[in-house]
Amino acid sequence: MMKTLQVDVAIIGAGTAGLYALREVKRANKSFVLIDKGPLGTTCARVGCMPSKVALHAAELWSMRQEQKHYGISGVEQLEIDRAAAWAKVRAMRDDFAGGAADNAIKSAGEHLLMGEAKFLEPTVLQVEGEDGIQRIEAKAVIIAVGSRPVVPSFLTPFSDYLITTDKLFELEKLPKRLGLLGLGVIGLEMGLALQRLGVKVVGADMAKAIGGIRDPEVAKYALQAFADNFPMFLGESAKLEEAEQGVQLVSGDNRVTVDKVLVALGRRPNIDKLNLAEAGFKLDERGMPEFNLNTLQIEDYPVYLVGDANAYRTLMHEAAAEGAIVGFNASRDLPQAFERKTSLAIAFTQPDIISVGASFTDLDEDETLIGAAYSKNDGRSRILSSKEGVLRIYADKKDGRLLGAAMVGARAEHLGQYLALAISQKMTAHELLAAPFYHPVVEEMIQSALQDIARKMPESPYPFGLTVMN
Amino acid sequence: MMKTLQVDVAIIGAGTAGLYALREVKRANKSFVLIDKGPLGTTCARVGCMPSKVALHAAELWSMRQEQKHYGISGVEQLEIDRAAAWAKVRAMRDDFAGGAADNAIKSAGEHLLMGEAKFLEPTVLQVEGEDGIQRIEAKAVIIAVGSRPVVPSFLTPFSDYLITTDKLFELEKLPKRLGLLGLGVIGLEMGLALQRLGVKVVGADMAKAIGGIRDPEVAKYALQAFADNFPMFLGESAKLEEAEQGVQLVSGDNRVTVDKVLVALGRRPNIDKLNLAEAGFKLDERGMPEFNLNTLQIEDYPVYLVGDANAYRTLMHEAAAEGAIVGFNASRDLPQAFERKTSLAIAFTQPDIISVGASFTDLDEDETLIGAAYSKNDGRSRILSSKEGVLRIYADKKDGRLLGAAMVGARAEHLGQYLALAISQKMTAHELLAAPFYHPVVEEMIQSALQDIARKMPESPYPFGLTVMN
Repeated sequence: MMKTLQVDVAIIGAGTAGLYALREVKRANKSFVLIDKGPLGTTCARVGCMPSKVALHAAELWSMRQEQKHYGISGVEQLEIDRAAAWAKVRAMRDDFAGGAADNAIKSAGEHLLMGEAKFLEPTVLQVEGEDGIQRIEAKAVIIAVGSRPVVPSFLTPFSDYLITTDKLFELEKLPKRLGLLGLGVIGLEMGLALQRLGVKVVGADMAKAIGGIRDPEVAKYALQAFADNFPMFLGESAKLEEAEQGVQLVSGDNRVTVDKVLVALGRRPNIDKLNLAEAGFKLDERGMPEFNLNTLQIEDYPVYLVGDANAYRTLMHEAAAEGAIVGFNASRDLPQAFERKTSLAIAFTQPDIISVGASFTDLDEDETLIGAAYSKNDGRSRILSSKEGVLRIYADKKDGRLLGAAMVGARAEHLGQYLALAISQKMTAHELLAAPFYHPVVEEMIQSALQDIARKMPESPYPFGLTVMN
Repeated sequence: MMKTLQVDVAIIGAGTAGLYALREVKRANKSFVLIDKGPLGTTCARVGCMPSKVALHAAELWSMRQEQKHYGISGVEQLEIDRAAAWAKVRAMRDDFAGGAADNAIKSAGEHLLMGEAKFLEPTVLQVEGEDGIQRIEAKAVIIAVGSRPVVPSFLTPFSDYLITTDKLFELEKLPKRLGLLGLGVIGLEMGLALQRLGVKVVGADMAKAIGGIRDPEVAKYALQAFADNFPMFLGESAKLEEAEQGVQLVSGDNRVTVDKVLVALGRRPNIDKLNLAEAGFKLDERGMPEFNLNTLQIEDYPVYLVGDANAYRTLMHEAAAEGAIVGFNASRDLPQAFERKTSLAIAFTQPDIISVGASFTDLDEDETLIGAAYSKNDGRSRILSSKEGVLRIYADKKDGRLLGAAMVGARAEHLGQYLALAISQKMTAHELLAAPFYHPVVEEMIQSALQDIARKMPESPYPFGLTVMN
């Protein structure tokens, strides 16, 4: 007979969201089981944010030689990169981060870690098939933290020998010489640039006309300029693959380039399709998604929670962590609590970086919004960092100057993103933020310039920008 | 007879403070004269923040080769630096920045720029001696923005042939081979590290036991470790110079090193000693400083204002700019207005950077303060950036967790300084700041870790750290 386990909380998935949920469940002294089908280690550490940053760092070290020349450094032409060795170092650091994440799961869950594949029988009853057979789990609450996987559209199936997804990229022992890149969103752009800078011949394509998912047309224009010399990008048309004598052809409009491998970066889809949700009684929409509340993360009125990449809302590590805490808290209590969502923040570490904070350009009512801009070419520190192709645009409410959002491409933009997210979450106005200290020379002075641009478009203030009268 | 000029506002000094003051005077439609003894160009652009950052950037490009090796890049040993060419590039960028600052003065003041040396005859009457003779200026208000110069103690006078100050460093056409460094505060440390990384053999000495002016003992310890391999630092004893066969000897305790030049970085003193202040009726203290209000910058009850490096309060470019706006505003009005001072922020761009924000460690009452710490070696992004010797310490009020100050040595600390200055100026608590988004992997996550460290020392919160209950 099937073994039955009764717990307060069953968590499906030992990734970032699941582990942050577990922490709250333990803090509430609830019994639990943490189910994972393996391999352990978070998406972020195994195939996502961490290894991509290592690859970008390696790429920066190598591409730095162009700038070294300008400062009297000779012999730069004789430098060589052993791509295999560079990639091995990237993978070694990846293994280190991923190993740490896996250990974390094992330590946190202890004997309550159950390796196996979970399916719903009823909203709070699971069946888990693992190496030790099948178990039935009866839980008071269930957390669905099953993560996501790369989308690979069916038209690519005939070329599967040539395809790599970001989930497999860091498994490669050897980098291809020529790489086609399908999808120039944040992930595609980051990896395409890293590999191109490491010496891979890259060509990319995207249906969208902007790269990096940029919504602001001015920022999109500058981003295209900033990366124009890196590799050819075929934009605004759907691309396809065709057979070639050696390798495979990436075809977009009249463009046709033969490559050895194709990196598919067309987005990720939630891993909820194998959970048997419909059969267990959950209502699913046309995309197969259950209905859930963004502030409690509860599905319908069940004591069941959908979290992290699995809910496809904000598929970012820091959001998965926050959502994990929300559902761990809620699954441990009789009534779910609604929590505020964080100010949205997205960063592409593309050097120059691309960021989007708070409201995006396409969310705004043009008539109600002031836009302040600052340009890298006018910023002292950006010039020192040899970064001239950048722009920051900050959006504010015309009524009172309250900051709504921002977008940027430029050197060190990741840090400006953090800073602006704080200011926006504090509901600050342009004038209020101008009162903060802006050191010199720091790239954050671009924020000051853009805020002054906004302030100049507002009714004139009696006091100089950035000064606060004492009471 | 002496020509007499009557103006609303006389500004002495066309540096950062003077030019920011001028902007407000013009905005108030007051008549003015801008007096400068030359050369034009701000301290920041000519000899301070800007050229030092260029030198540090050049130094980073050169020292980068150590890390390049770890990522499969070979031929690094064959790289050579032409120090003269590197220095020429630094100086060329310096000339560009300084030229821009000088042009700015000329454009802003137009025909009201008067080149010459000013002295006070009475509190609002000046005498200016220039190439075109002597002029008398009768003003309704006077702004003293005369800047500062490096301190060179008299015991160094016999060795003047060997001495360089930061005011002259960027005039050097050739870098010395061996450099002694007197003073390891922010400026000494920045320039010492830049020159050492560019290949100069540097040795430094300071009476203080901490480098970079660090007050927090834990941060001071980590900073010493971080820079231990750069060059010898003789600390905690007063150093002196002695004659040598070739060059000059830097002597500190039992240490004795022969060098070619000595960079004197023992601080700067206000240029107010030549203004004839006492004779004109101002009361001076034992250090020769007039008494002024920190929020109006007014001297006694005169319509005379002391601003920028000249008042020796916060000798930083961004503070000079803010003070300039204050005095430009006040000098244009009958009654001076008191303004809030900005949250204090100091950055040494030493890579790893050193920062101090808000209240410093020595200002705090140990019994009333919680300290939260985070270490670079535990931070993913810092590890990717090969920065392991860092620590961030955040100080909060034990009563309510309100943030008071912070100190750090670590990679990208300049950006964490900006961020923390904003949070402190907003009077945020540790719990409130935890609700902001912290992307992954960013060095700002060290702030999150240090805040969690503080939060764990406070009475337990019912909700997970970083979550805000919806109303």
